[in-house]
Amino acid sequence: MSSSASKIIVYGGRGALGSAIIKHFKAKNYWVGSIDLANNDEADANILVAPDASWTDQEKAVLADVAKVLDGQVLDAILCVAGGWAGGNAAHADFVKNSDLMWKQSVWSSVLASAIASKHLKEGGLLTLTGAKPALEGTPGMIGYGMAKAAVHQLTKSLAAGDGGLPKDSSVLTILPVTLDTPMNRKWMPKADHSTWTPLEYVSDMMEKWANKEERPASGSLVQLLTEAGVTKLVLA
Amino acid sequence: MSSSASKIIVYGGRGALGSAIIKHFKAKNYWVGSIDLANNDEADANILVAPDASWTDQEKAVLADVAKVLDGQVLDAILCVAGGWAGGNAAHADFVKNSDLMWKQSVWSSVLASAIASKHLKEGGLLTLTGAKPALEGTPGMIGYGMAKAAVHQLTKSLAAGDGGLPKDSSVLTILPVTLDTPMNRKWMPKADHSTWTPLEYVSDMMEKWANKEERPASGSLVQLLTEAGVTKLVLA
Repeated sequence: MSSSASKIIVYGGRGALGSAIIKHFKAKNYWVGSIDLANNDEADANILVAPDASWTDQEKAVLADVAKVLDGQVLDAILCVAGGWAGGNAAHADFVKNSDLMWKQSVWSSVLASAIASKHLKEGGLLTLTGAKPALEGTPGMIGYGMAKAAVHQLTKSLAAGDGGLPKDSSVLTILPVTLDTPMNRKWMPKADHSTWTPLEYVSDMMEKWANKEERPASGSLVQLLTEAGVTKLVLA
Repeated sequence: MSSSASKIIVYGGRGALGSAIIKHFKAKNYWVGSIDLANNDEADANILVAPDASWTDQEKAVLADVAKVLDGQVLDAILCVAGGWAGGNAAHADFVKNSDLMWKQSVWSSVLASAIASKHLKEGGLLTLTGAKPALEGTPGMIGYGMAKAAVHQLTKSLAAGDGGLPKDSSVLTILPVTLDTPMNRKWMPKADHSTWTPLEYVSDMMEKWANKEERPASGSLVQLLTEAGVTKLVLA
């Protein structure tokens, strides 16, 4: 890998948002690594996560692979956009199963991205995580999802504190989308008002600015992405 | 079991607070069930949790045992006081391991208590969970602990909503202790100011009142237990 190119890792680089981010940063000549369950062929390096491994086993494998790929070089940004969705209240037959799944998809990935940042992010670098606006309040119809996202929100506050373990002067910012304009969301919600969905290119462009220290909100911010009539505004929670 | 006695289950009935609560409610002639890793001999029934089982396997076993013990009768209250503590920021060697442990100790138990409540709590009954005041903000020195407790706080809000899955008119209240006056805390912090620690008997007495619909705060409340000079005040977060 070139030692002069700017470098980022996308955790969840095979998903809809992750793929859009990788495409965007590649077009800007970044070196891009992807961490996911499957390869993203546009990435310069791919690190695969074993979905059935324990959290600590994933940690060992992912950290070893990242160290090997970076070979002592540092990252400008780590962008964690892994996640998923499942519903259900406390009386739902899959309440526990879905809570477990949501924790693994959102919190395992966010924590592992944070661990990577503590070791490989440059001073003044950027870590982004992915929360959810609804989890700022109760989410009775999707309890497991809300718990996991609330944990990510609180993790953001912990990491932003001076002794949270991230490199000096780095920033942690968590995006709180409402609905992202992905092919999957279009498929499942064909009749929704798509003008209120946030375009993936908007998010990618915003993250590139933040990575370059442009328009970067204060570290620890929960950044709501509010889209109306196709226009997205950032509102700090 | 007597069908006329008031009935509660304490999740974490073998811990310091759980044991105090069981002693208190037994003295008031309640039927008391305990769920924990080991038996509480003062309880009328004990349900043991297999610590190495998966979350869904724990769910299956615990729900089956509770249904068998209750045999169609309903509970006045389910009091979840299971939990634990571990420190570490994102750069700590045990960051992931401790985050995993905190999730299992605080969130697995809280979610299973909620699932029990959805099936066996009486209408107008009481579910209590255990959060932590520090987790209302960032907790950089104990990130895993903060994430788990923040999830419990958000779970509280979800359960309190009308369609959260709890029985009609029931209440969910989460206590946010600062430091409880337990033998273990006395052992590890012998020189701390114990007059700011919350006595277990205070908490037990408060829970009995809540179970009897006396002085019960609004469902969904996060109830901080603030103790100064030996006097405890309840302050809603």
